[in-house]
Amino acid sequence: MTVILRLDGDPVELTAALVDIPSVSGQEGELAAAVEGALREQAGHLEVVRSGNAVLARTNLGRGSRVVLAGHLDTVPINGNLPVRWDGDGDGAELAGCGAVDMKGGDAVMLHLAATARNPVHDLTFIFYDCEELDAARNGLGRIEREQPEWLAGDLAIVCEPSNAVVEAGCQGTMRVELRTEGRRAHTARAWMGVNAIHALGGALYRLDEYQPRTAEIDGCRYREGLQAVAVRGGVAGNVVPDEAVLTVNYRFAPDRSVEQATEHLRAVFDGYLLTVVDCAAGAMPGLSAPAARELVAAAGGDPVAKLGWTDVARFAAAGLPAVNFGPGDPTLAHTKEEHVPVAQIRRCVEVLGRFLGR
Amino acid sequence: MTVILRLDGDPVELTAALVDIPSVSGQEGELAAAVEGALREQAGHLEVVRSGNAVLARTNLGRGSRVVLAGHLDTVPINGNLPVRWDGDGDGAELAGCGAVDMKGGDAVMLHLAATARNPVHDLTFIFYDCEELDAARNGLGRIEREQPEWLAGDLAIVCEPSNAVVEAGCQGTMRVELRTEGRRAHTARAWMGVNAIHALGGALYRLDEYQPRTAEIDGCRYREGLQAVAVRGGVAGNVVPDEAVLTVNYRFAPDRSVEQATEHLRAVFDGYLLTVVDCAAGAMPGLSAPAARELVAAAGGDPVAKLGWTDVARFAAAGLPAVNFGPGDPTLAHTKEEHVPVAQIRRCVEVLGRFLGR
Repeated sequence: MTVILRLDGDPVELTAALVDIPSVSGQEGELAAAVEGALREQAGHLEVVRSGNAVLARTNLGRGSRVVLAGHLDTVPINGNLPVRWDGDGDGAELAGCGAVDMKGGDAVMLHLAATARNPVHDLTFIFYDCEELDAARNGLGRIEREQPEWLAGDLAIVCEPSNAVVEAGCQGTMRVELRTEGRRAHTARAWMGVNAIHALGGALYRLDEYQPRTAEIDGCRYREGLQAVAVRGGVAGNVVPDEAVLTVNYRFAPDRSVEQATEHLRAVFDGYLLTVVDCAAGAMPGLSAPAARELVAAAGGDPVAKLGWTDVARFAAAGLPAVNFGPGDPTLAHTKEEHVPVAQIRRCVEVLGRFLGR
Repeated sequence: MTVILRLDGDPVELTAALVDIPSVSGQEGELAAAVEGALREQAGHLEVVRSGNAVLARTNLGRGSRVVLAGHLDTVPINGNLPVRWDGDGDGAELAGCGAVDMKGGDAVMLHLAATARNPVHDLTFIFYDCEELDAARNGLGRIEREQPEWLAGDLAIVCEPSNAVVEAGCQGTMRVELRTEGRRAHTARAWMGVNAIHALGGALYRLDEYQPRTAEIDGCRYREGLQAVAVRGGVAGNVVPDEAVLTVNYRFAPDRSVEQATEHLRAVFDGYLLTVVDCAAGAMPGLSAPAARELVAAAGGDPVAKLGWTDVARFAAAGLPAVNFGPGDPTLAHTKEEHVPVAQIRRCVEVLGRFLGR
């Protein structure tokens, strides 16, 4: 049974309805069907296309510019935080539940605008996609970029990831590297016959502990970098000097550094270690000088800030579009059991974007 | 079908037959049945008792002293190294295969003596036991010590673990400890909001790398200690500052240190870390001044050396018996895929022990 979503009503109620349709990465089918059905029924002015568990919709009004709005439908695993819970009331009310922040509040804003912005000043493209919370290779937006790139064309991209309803510009790059140490196995009773690969990680951990991350200021936005061990493993048996250990490090780097420059930097930091890049995604420059971006910043009426987490704005930036994050919810609550979104931010996003896009 | 073992023939052939009966820890049933059957059939002068997958046998000749010989029947997992392989010939011949060194060569020596030493100068007890290669709690000799302690009584214990057919005296203690670090989770894009538990292990690894293990000389034997990381783990996800990491360290300590003293030493080395002892076993002093031990050393005609690995001699030492290791095979080959035992060492052990025990 497909849930009926009402798009032109209260975007807060719509958020609650979206949260109550579970959509853990890879299991977005039910939600994608509900989104597709609602758009086809309630937004007949849009061209709608289904692509796997993604749903694409756009106007074809012949405007001189196009704004792309993008949001992922999937969530991290449910953590005892469904169904949705309403906390407080009035302007202070909040919705709590899996995906409330990341990013069904943003999806609701997009769906509401898709149905109601029938005479916008820009042509509009809406992309609801799958598998954002998994490895980059499975990202639904990446699949659309490869298979249907015309759907990503435009003059400005707004990724409605949580940003506390403030324009967050660009995003930092992210890279995971593995440092692998090698040794020689021996029985621990004769340890001098071996070489301990775990001990050899000590120097890398020391460098991490001493590391002073830089902050880059770009277009008035401050990008604060970070270098953190995220996993370590090693060991053969309780009585064996281990011959291999692996430390996984995550580097978040400001968008003035390319992936190549970031790699070079890590090779310098971990000089002497065998380093392998296992995953990376370039950052995105803020791009705030573009006309549409300036209009959005003006509509939001505040100073933009740097986006620190990696988001899919980077895909748009790589394709040449200025791209910003703008959505309801506190990004530091993303992926937590307690994620909750202030209803006032949902309403504010609808209002700011409605003003910017024109109704 | 139970294999028939011929006990009074060539102890090298007997070793090969034992290797060819797989007996990975916990699966010693077939081998225990073969050992029990052979002792009952071919060593009628012995009292024989089955105890789980252990087999106990002894003389009751009323001698003034008793020598206990002990060997475990189990092996580490088979690693493509069965059936037994004969390499070389003549005095340089070797038997290769799972358990050849650890310790079916020693078991064969014991079984041969059990059948042939019918008029020994000491009363004799033979203990073939199970599950030595597992955690101390499952050790078959420990079970016998708890349930049938009279079987461990005597004036000297000879554990026929591989010692290159040299008397190895006492043994070192062993202890495993976990060092646990705690931090605070955060998204790596906002790393300054978290505390990285993996980074906090750096100091412990540094201390391990710098650690200078001591060597203790006791009764002319040199016990060389060791302190080694044997496992490390930590990590929540590729984009999360981890809030817990665990480093497992194995300490091998000379028998002049008690378990309490060893623990205290590690607490000093890792001062500032949360340390938990997860496993420990006291060492055994060499005990070479006991009359029977002196006779054995004389029969072996060489200088005894220190046993560095922990063996079940420690159980006998704790019960008040002087205890030594004496068996065929190079202990550094134990647990390796390539373990192989020189047939000359098997014959030498039979000859030395036969001379010491009297036939």
